[in-house]
Amino acid sequence: MRPRDPAFACGRLPAGARNSISDVPGVTVGHRTLIEGDVCTGVTAILPHQGDVFRDKPVAAAYVLNGFGKSVGLMQVEELGQLETPILLTNTFAVGTCANVLIRRAIAANPGIGRRTSTVNPVVCECNDGYLSDIQAMAVTETDAVAALDAAAADFDVGAVGGGAGMSCFGFKGGIGTSSRVLTLDGADHHLGVLVQANFGRAGDLRLPDGRRVDPASVPAPEQGSVIVVVATDVPLDHRQLRRVIRRAGVGLAWAGSFWGNGSGDVFLGFTTANRVPHDAKTDLLAQRILAENRIDALFQATAEATQEAVLDALAAAGTTIARAGHRRPGLRDALGDSA
Amino acid sequence: MRPRDPAFACGRLPAGARNSISDVPGVTVGHRTLIEGDVCTGVTAILPHQGDVFRDKPVAAAYVLNGFGKSVGLMQVEELGQLETPILLTNTFAVGTCANVLIRRAIAANPGIGRRTSTVNPVVCECNDGYLSDIQAMAVTETDAVAALDAAAADFDVGAVGGGAGMSCFGFKGGIGTSSRVLTLDGADHHLGVLVQANFGRAGDLRLPDGRRVDPASVPAPEQGSVIVVVATDVPLDHRQLRRVIRRAGVGLAWAGSFWGNGSGDVFLGFTTANRVPHDAKTDLLAQRILAENRIDALFQATAEATQEAVLDALAAAGTTIARAGHRRPGLRDALGDSA
Amino acid sequence: MRPRDPAFACGRLPAGARNSISDVPGVTVGHRTLIEGDVCTGVTAILPHQGDVFRDKPVAAAYVLNGFGKSVGLMQVEELGQLETPILLTNTFAVGTCANVLIRRAIAANPGIGRRTSTVNPVVCECNDGYLSDIQAMAVTETDAVAALDAAAADFDVGAVGGGAGMSCFGFKGGIGTSSRVLTLDGADHHLGVLVQANFGRAGDLRLPDGRRVDPASVPAPEQGSVIVVVATDVPLDHRQLRRVIRRAGVGLAWAGSFWGNGSGDVFLGFTTANRVPHDAKTDLLAQRILAENRIDALFQATAEATQEAVLDALAAAGTTIARAGHRRPGLRDALGDSA
Amino acid sequence: MRPRDPAFACGRLPAGARNSISDVPGVTVGHRTLIEGDVCTGVTAILPHQGDVFRDKPVAAAYVLNGFGKSVGLMQVEELGQLETPILLTNTFAVGTCANVLIRRAIAANPGIGRRTSTVNPVVCECNDGYLSDIQAMAVTETDAVAALDAAAADFDVGAVGGGAGMSCFGFKGGIGTSSRVLTLDGADHHLGVLVQANFGRAGDLRLPDGRRVDPASVPAPEQGSVIVVVATDVPLDHRQLRRVIRRAGVGLAWAGSFWGNGSGDVFLGFTTANRVPHDAKTDLLAQRILAENRIDALFQATAEATQEAVLDALAAAGTTIARAGHRRPGLRDALGDSA
Repeated sequence: MRPRDPAFACGRLPAGARNSISDVPGVTVGHRTLIEGDVCTGVTAILPHQGDVFRDKPVAAAYVLNGFGKSVGLMQVEELGQLETPILLTNTFAVGTCANVLIRRAIAANPGIGRRTSTVNPVVCECNDGYLSDIQAMAVTETDAVAALDAAAADFDVGAVGGGAGMSCFGFKGGIGTSSRVLTLDGADHHLGVLVQANFGRAGDLRLPDGRRVDPASVPAPEQGSVIVVVATDVPLDHRQLRRVIRRAGVGLAWAGSFWGNGSGDVFLGFTTANRVPHDAKTDLLAQRILAENRIDALFQATAEATQEAVLDALAAAGTTIARAGHRRPGLRDALGDSA
Repeated sequence: MRPRDPAFACGRLPAGARNSISDVPGVTVGHRTLIEGDVCTGVTAILPHQGDVFRDKPVAAAYVLNGFGKSVGLMQVEELGQLETPILLTNTFAVGTCANVLIRRAIAANPGIGRRTSTVNPVVCECNDGYLSDIQAMAVTETDAVAALDAAAADFDVGAVGGGAGMSCFGFKGGIGTSSRVLTLDGADHHLGVLVQANFGRAGDLRLPDGRRVDPASVPAPEQGSVIVVVATDVPLDHRQLRRVIRRAGVGLAWAGSFWGNGSGDVFLGFTTANRVPHDAKTDLLAQRILAENRIDALFQATAEATQEAVLDALAAAGTTIARAGHRRPGLRDALGDSA
Repeated sequence: MRPRDPAFACGRLPAGARNSISDVPGVTVGHRTLIEGDVCTGVTAILPHQGDVFRDKPVAAAYVLNGFGKSVGLMQVEELGQLETPILLTNTFAVGTCANVLIRRAIAANPGIGRRTSTVNPVVCECNDGYLSDIQAMAVTETDAVAALDAAAADFDVGAVGGGAGMSCFGFKGGIGTSSRVLTLDGADHHLGVLVQANFGRAGDLRLPDGRRVDPASVPAPEQGSVIVVVATDVPLDHRQLRRVIRRAGVGLAWAGSFWGNGSGDVFLGFTTANRVPHDAKTDLLAQRILAENRIDALFQATAEATQEAVLDALAAAGTTIARAGHRRPGLRDALGDSA
Repeated sequence: MRPRDPAFACGRLPAGARNSISDVPGVTVGHRTLIEGDVCTGVTAILPHQGDVFRDKPVAAAYVLNGFGKSVGLMQVEELGQLETPILLTNTFAVGTCANVLIRRAIAANPGIGRRTSTVNPVVCECNDGYLSDIQAMAVTETDAVAALDAAAADFDVGAVGGGAGMSCFGFKGGIGTSSRVLTLDGADHHLGVLVQANFGRAGDLRLPDGRRVDPASVPAPEQGSVIVVVATDVPLDHRQLRRVIRRAGVGLAWAGSFWGNGSGDVFLGFTTANRVPHDAKTDLLAQRILAENRIDALFQATAEATQEAVLDALAAAGTTIARAGHRRPGLRDALGDSA
């Protein structure tokens, strides 16, 4: 169990045991953090399950709220409705390198890729951490991406770690945050978990759950950030339903105070572990389960609440950071005078 | 069995018993044709199954190739992935009247609509038959739409009937056409059927299956037509797969000679009878089947072939017509000098 | 000048002189309200300018946040990026009738429609007012739609009038509301105005600008509503920019407390009076102006703020209503104990 | 002037002087071809104009006909409607490396990228050449991508060169092809040019302009290819119009015989040199020109014809190739017994 600060708890639905994306059974997260000199960046890996994702593909969907960004792999996720690699989150200029690692690992596990069977679609999402990190250094190496993947576990750090190391959010130090909600369907517990790489929001626009605005006293500047929201669930959904669900991440961002600024590439990616498609189907027709549509409001609300809370989780966990060229982002708790 | 003229047969996959959308079990079609004075129009109804469509909703999808058109109901089909009324095809200015009939009939069968349960989404697609018919007369009445619905049967006419009465296609007399293909999946026969309301194509652009261009010797004019393609199947698909399948109707239109002109609203609508969603689900989770994605090429090819052939079916069945203001459209067979 | 209650003012940008969509020069609004027996419904008309909209088409865009709705005309708006009729807002089952009126009026002014030139695309958006009104009565007539169009003026009522007569919002009485913002571009004042037909939101979810939740003490029920947001501006934008701008109406709905529930068809429609396209262009190429993209945040923020405030404007203006079958919706001010 | 073989000429509109994408003034193309051992791949670069693309961004659009592919940069093209780097075409697993080169070159020319201004959006499109090349070798280096960019010129080779070195098409040797059309608008010549990286089409499905089917006598296999179609024009269009235009590339593919198979990622990218957006706009509002929409059919037809002919250009120029593991693709002219 992670401690949950009431000041940052959002909404009305119950959180999962860890209040984390890893409350969805099988989902794990790993980080590789690079902080040295003017470099303050990293990689975060999300594994949708513990098997070979290329052979056993979770049904997935992507939704682009604001396409001012450079994430890769979303086009095929939308066409085929499935994920076939882990998801990497990193800085904008590390996308190519991270994609190469996902390709190499898929090939190592499946030597037929690109020869006897189709190629593989790496999914890498990004935000621009150029304020705190020397993004032009292109410091993330393939070794770093491998390290993030190898570190994946159900318990993982949040705040200024991994892909979130150099991120900013509403003028504060941003980073990685997570939250989850529990839902009962046909008498059984199900889970919906969210992980964000939060690098968005204009200084002065942050709104806490009690309605207070919080200002880091920095000069407002246009958003040149982005936010990546990854939604995992063990509720069986088809691609269309999943796409409807993840779209509600936009509500969570608005509740946190954002108006989805021009310069912020806002990208949502979702998958369900409850419907998976085999790479080599033995039959022409496959069985799946879906949700009765008039029960979907619970998932909409869960996504909105968990996204808002995951953003606050990132802010609450990240301390004041001084990095590239002396640029400074205050931690939210430091700014609020919290001792936590 | 309908006779199949080799000159107008398209592609390589086998046609169904009727070479008709009604080869998909349960699908029926009815017409109401209005020809009097300057009025040359009508309504065609497609029933996806013989039950109450509002209570037992087929999984459906819509794809807009060219949105220069006024069809209604597609937005909700795309959001919810289901159909809840029969489909009506008619002229552009009869859409409102036809929609009202679908609402009234759904209410009559389900008195809770709009009161104790949600409203109903009527689906009406249209083309502009203004060259041959006085579209400003708004001649289609609610009674006409009811008559088309009541006439639905597995055997139905094609050519200048129903919604196709006043349509033009590549400068020839257009109308309603249909075709189907048979597919084997997991050892069992499945069907994919297409019905078109064909009112598109620039004079001189028609291409026959043998590669010949056919010109009605009329002056080329910009397309101000439209084409509606309805795809029915008993292959179990989810919304995403169905949307990929119906998109290939655009291939069939191109094979017939069209370049999808500006003024032609090209709208594709598909449904599967093999996955249905109850209006009142008893459980939170529902079972469905989907197609293994790497078998989907057969459905793509079937859609392309059957769309091309359905267009030719409409052209082959429609005789030379002289209507509003003496406007004339030659029948394709008349132009080719066929005796059929 | 309309009075502006500080309790319901939203955001930081200055409002226009009327705090109304009609602050955009040329935009007018008219209502026809039907309240009799179990009927509590109506029509609201928005005229984008005072000329012939078919001949002089404002650049326009549509964005469907949740397609669980039956609005018509949006497909062609998205394909061609222009509006060619006024916009009508009404109840779900009056769409066909209202569309017919827009067709007839366009034909009366332009006898070549459907004969010598293309057909016309009527735009009618709707919400389900079935809780307070007998929607099955299909009470709106063509005469009513004509009356709304004829009543259009720069000064108009808000609250439970026109298409908003029977609407509900967060368990309170909903209806029509409006708000605007002023922006300075290249040294000159420009305007962005919003009008909503507000019929969405779960009881208990409404959030006032100060952060307070307000509960009508009614039993929470799933959303079976909808909300239509019309955004007008005199800032010159192209279709793509306009679509980005109106998408931010979703922020305003979230700030008001909504999580964009399943049953609420949320539809946004925008137009700019500053770029218009002639029906009969005299040249092949036409001059337009667009906004430098990095100035667009002001329009995003204006849309979010004005949408939130327009929803509150509808709520604040609508009194407690008892209608069909004794169904009751409290007015927000009544519930808050305000005297205004 | 390039010679134009009548057997492979398509359609009715006149071709440009070079029958090439470089008929659009300012557009140049360069190749880097890698053929050694089991490696048979490369990079093709398209420069939209001869200035700094990051500072002077052509209006652009992307259209994904089939998203089974791994191209990068399209999301931002769609959101912002502009291109800010040259376009690279290569094999599937070289995308990351090519993207890195575009980033480095943009930074070298604009040191503020990612620091004082936004990041840069590299556009790299790909097909899978794994049948003829050892794609797992990931043989393309950053040096290769630089070489392709540096080689760009108005005159360039077609066939099995650059990104087309290892591509297959309808069972024949595929590759890079190009074609163009000339249009008169407001009395002046304008151009539309197409370049394809053709790696699609099932063996046996190729159709020549005279209607003949051509079969390479190889065993039909599912498409695991892709095709990238780049459309350039000097007709002033906005993003919406450009997107409508490039969509018609799908017609050209269908006319060539394809039904847009499942495994073929079909991606279209277009730009106009006639509307450009400065990175640092001096004013809030910018002047642009657009096309009167009812003249757009000429561009639709030009795109369809030039795409079909560019595919045939690639096939006609590529000789029989034996490469990785002895895999063989016959050249189309060799198969037809042509001497050319």
